[in-house]
Amino acid sequence: MSVEQLGAQAAEASRVLMTAGSEQKNNGLEAIAKAIEDNQAFIIEENQKDLEAGRQNGLTESLLDRLMLNEGRLADICGAVRSIAGQADPVGEILSGSVRPNGLQIQKVRVPLGVVGIIYEARPNVTVDAAALCLKSGNTCILRGGKEAIRSNTALVQIMRKAVTQAGLPENTICLIEDTSRESAKELMRLNKYVSVLIPRGGAGLIRSVVENATVPVIETGVGNCHVYVEESADIDMAKNIIYNAKTSRVSVCNAIETMLIHKNIAQRALPIIKEALDQKDVEIRGCAGTASIIPVTPATDEDYATEFSDYIIACRIVDSTEEAVEHIAKYGSGHSDCIVTESYAESLYFTSRVDAAAVYVNASTRFTDGGEFGLGAEVGISTQKLHARGPMGITALTSEKYIILGTGQCR
Amino acid sequence: MSVEQLGAQAAEASRVLMTAGSEQKNNGLEAIAKAIEDNQAFIIEENQKDLEAGRQNGLTESLLDRLMLNEGRLADICGAVRSIAGQADPVGEILSGSVRPNGLQIQKVRVPLGVVGIIYEARPNVTVDAAALCLKSGNTCILRGGKEAIRSNTALVQIMRKAVTQAGLPENTICLIEDTSRESAKELMRLNKYVSVLIPRGGAGLIRSVVENATVPVIETGVGNCHVYVEESADIDMAKNIIYNAKTSRVSVCNAIETMLIHKNIAQRALPIIKEALDQKDVEIRGCAGTASIIPVTPATDEDYATEFSDYIIACRIVDSTEEAVEHIAKYGSGHSDCIVTESYAESLYFTSRVDAAAVYVNASTRFTDGGEFGLGAEVGISTQKLHARGPMGITALTSEKYIILGTGQCR
Repeated sequence: MSVEQLGAQAAEASRVLMTAGSEQKNNGLEAIAKAIEDNQAFIIEENQKDLEAGRQNGLTESLLDRLMLNEGRLADICGAVRSIAGQADPVGEILSGSVRPNGLQIQKVRVPLGVVGIIYEARPNVTVDAAALCLKSGNTCILRGGKEAIRSNTALVQIMRKAVTQAGLPENTICLIEDTSRESAKELMRLNKYVSVLIPRGGAGLIRSVVENATVPVIETGVGNCHVYVEESADIDMAKNIIYNAKTSRVSVCNAIETMLIHKNIAQRALPIIKEALDQKDVEIRGCAGTASIIPVTPATDEDYATEFSDYIIACRIVDSTEEAVEHIAKYGSGHSDCIVTESYAESLYFTSRVDAAAVYVNASTRFTDGGEFGLGAEVGISTQKLHARGPMGITALTSEKYIILGTGQCR
Repeated sequence: MSVEQLGAQAAEASRVLMTAGSEQKNNGLEAIAKAIEDNQAFIIEENQKDLEAGRQNGLTESLLDRLMLNEGRLADICGAVRSIAGQADPVGEILSGSVRPNGLQIQKVRVPLGVVGIIYEARPNVTVDAAALCLKSGNTCILRGGKEAIRSNTALVQIMRKAVTQAGLPENTICLIEDTSRESAKELMRLNKYVSVLIPRGGAGLIRSVVENATVPVIETGVGNCHVYVEESADIDMAKNIIYNAKTSRVSVCNAIETMLIHKNIAQRALPIIKEALDQKDVEIRGCAGTASIIPVTPATDEDYATEFSDYIIACRIVDSTEEAVEHIAKYGSGHSDCIVTESYAESLYFTSRVDAAAVYVNASTRFTDGGEFGLGAEVGISTQKLHARGPMGITALTSEKYIILGTGQCR
C-alpha cells in the first residue's frame, strides 16, 4: 500500500477518533496493554530477528540495547500505556467562550489534531508510546520507524491494530509504514493533504532532515545545548551540586548541560570545588583562558561552546557579568533549558526575563525539564521551537482547537 | 545588505523588544501613527510612482486599487495602529503555575515569538499593519512585500523605523527586505537561525509556494472553501438570508461560501426561494442533477466543489443526510468555516462535533469568522492549519510561552 493510501485511511479513521469518548479510548488503551502482555513471546521472537540482523549489520552495542525488548521492558511499555489511559482527556475542554453584542455565542473548544505522523529511529518502545499518546488525544497516527526495528514494529502494530477493534475503534487508528526506504519517509513529510503534524523523534540528523524536507508542519524536539551560569553571589556548594547533577546524572539526554558559565568574581573560589566534583566522574573540562588560569583544562574552542557533547565533557567560560552570560546563551544555546545559580533577586529576574529558552531555571538542575517532572504526565517530546508547543509536550500538545458559533440567523 | 545580515539584526533587536514594557511599545505605535500622518505627502508621492510603474506593467484595476494609498486610506491605517496600541498586552501573562512535590515553583508565562517573517503581495497597508501587530506583541518583523509596492513599502518602513527610535526602541524593530527577487523570499523562508515563524499573506499561489519552500515554521492563512448546509428542519427564510449574506456580501473574502448543501427533503421548497435571492446579485448556480431537477442551473463538476470561486458563483448539491453533508465537507472543504442551518438540536450537535473546521456555525453567516467579530481585536490572518493557531489570529497568536522554574538547589 502506498503512503498516500495509508494517509487516506488514517484520515478516515481520524473522523471516528475525533468523536470517540474517553471511556472508549481508555478501553482501547487497556486492550493494547493486555494484547502486548498476551503476545509477549511472539514480540520477543520478532525482536530477536531484528537484533540478529542488527548484529550482522554491525550496529553498535548502544543501538542494539535501544532496539532490544525483553519481558521487563514490555512490562514497562504496558505500564506506560495504562498510565496514559489514566490521564485526563484533553479533548472537548472549553477553552474560552463569550456572547457577542449581536447575540452570537462563541466557544473555543479543544479538538484532536487529526492525523499525527511520527518519524523515529530504532526504538520499538516509541511505536507503542506514540500510538498510545495519539489514541488518548483522539488522533490517528502514521508511524515510520527505522528499518533496524521493522520486525518488532510490524509485530507490535499488528497486535495493537487488532486490540483497538475490541474497543470498537477502527484498525487504522494505528498505521505503520512498512516500507523503510528514504522515499517513504519523504512521502510522509509531504502528505499535507492528510497529515496535520509531523513529530520527529531521534538524533539531530533525523530532525534536521525532517525540517529540511517536510512541507507538513513539524514540531522540532530534543536538541539541547543547555547551560548553568554561576552568578557572583551564588552559593558555591549549591552551584557544585547542580552542575554535577545536570552534567553527570545522565549524559545522553537533552536536558543535561554542556557548558558552565562562571562569573569572574566567584571563579577563583568556585572552580576548584566544581572540578573536584566533576573529577569523580572523570568529566573532561574544556575551558577558556580565564578558566585555564585557575584549574588545568583542555582549551575550549568556539565549536565546543556550540556542541551538544552528550558525553562526560563540559565546556567552561568565565564571564564578566550576567549580561555576558545571557549573550553567550543567546549565541550558542538551543533554547532548551538554562539555569542561573544566584542569591541575588535582581540577577535572577534579569536572567529569567532575558534568556529565551523553553525552560529557565533559578537554583535547580536543568534535568527537571521533563513532562513527568513538570506534572504533565507522559511526554511526546520536548519542543525546542516556539510554535504550537514549547518545552515538555504532554498529550495536550497533540490537540488543536476549533470555534463553535451558535446563532439565531445572524448575518453580517 | 544580505537577508542573513538582516535576520541577525532583527534577532538582536528582538532581545530588546522581548523585555520592552507595554507603555514603551504603545509609545512606539503612537509615534508610528503620528509619523505616517506627518509624512503623508511623501508616502503618497512614492505610492504614485508604484502606481505608474504598475500601470505600465499592465496590473489589473483591482490590483492597482489594492496598491493605492490616499489620505483616507492612510487615516484608516493610522487608526488601525492606534487601535492595536489600545489592545491589552499579551506578553507576561502567567498561563499556569504550580508547586511540585519537591518544592520547585513552575510558572508558564507568555513571551514573544522573537522574529516574525511576513511575505505578502502588493498591499502596502499590510506593511504597517504587520509591523504594528508584531511590535505590540514584542516581536521584531522582517517584511518581504511584493515588488509592485516596493517604493511605498520602502517609504513606510523608513518612516516607521525612525518613529520607533523616538520611543527608545531599536530601528531594527521593523526590517524590510528591499530586494524583491524570488531568491530573497526563498532565503527568508530558510532563515531558521533567526526567524521563529513565517506568515504568508496573499493568494493561494503565494501560500503554496511558502509551504513548499519554507523550512521555517509557517502559519497558513486565508484559504477558504466554506459551506452552508440546509438541514431538513431548517427555517427556509433564515437559510435564504444566511446563504445570500455568506455568498454575496463580499465575494472575494475567505469567509464567503462557495457551496450550499441542501437536504433532499427540503430542497423542493427551499431551492426556488434561495435562487430568487441569489438572482438579485446574478449569482451563477452550478448544481448536481438533483438541483437541476428543481431549478435551472449549470451542471456542477467535481472541480466546482473543490474551487474557491471568490466570485458570484455558488455550487449546489442535494444530500440525503447530515452525514452525507459532513462527508462532502470533509472531502472538499478547506477547514475554514462551515455552517448548518437547522431547528434540530440533535443535528446541530452532530454537525458541530464532526465538521473539522476552524469555525463551525449553527444558524449564522460564515462571514463572522474574523478577529474583530470574534472580539480578538486586530487580526494577523485566519489560520486554516491546526498547529499553533486556528481561526482568526489576534496578537496572542504572535506569542509563545516559556517555563520559569524557581528552586532552592533541587537536583534530580
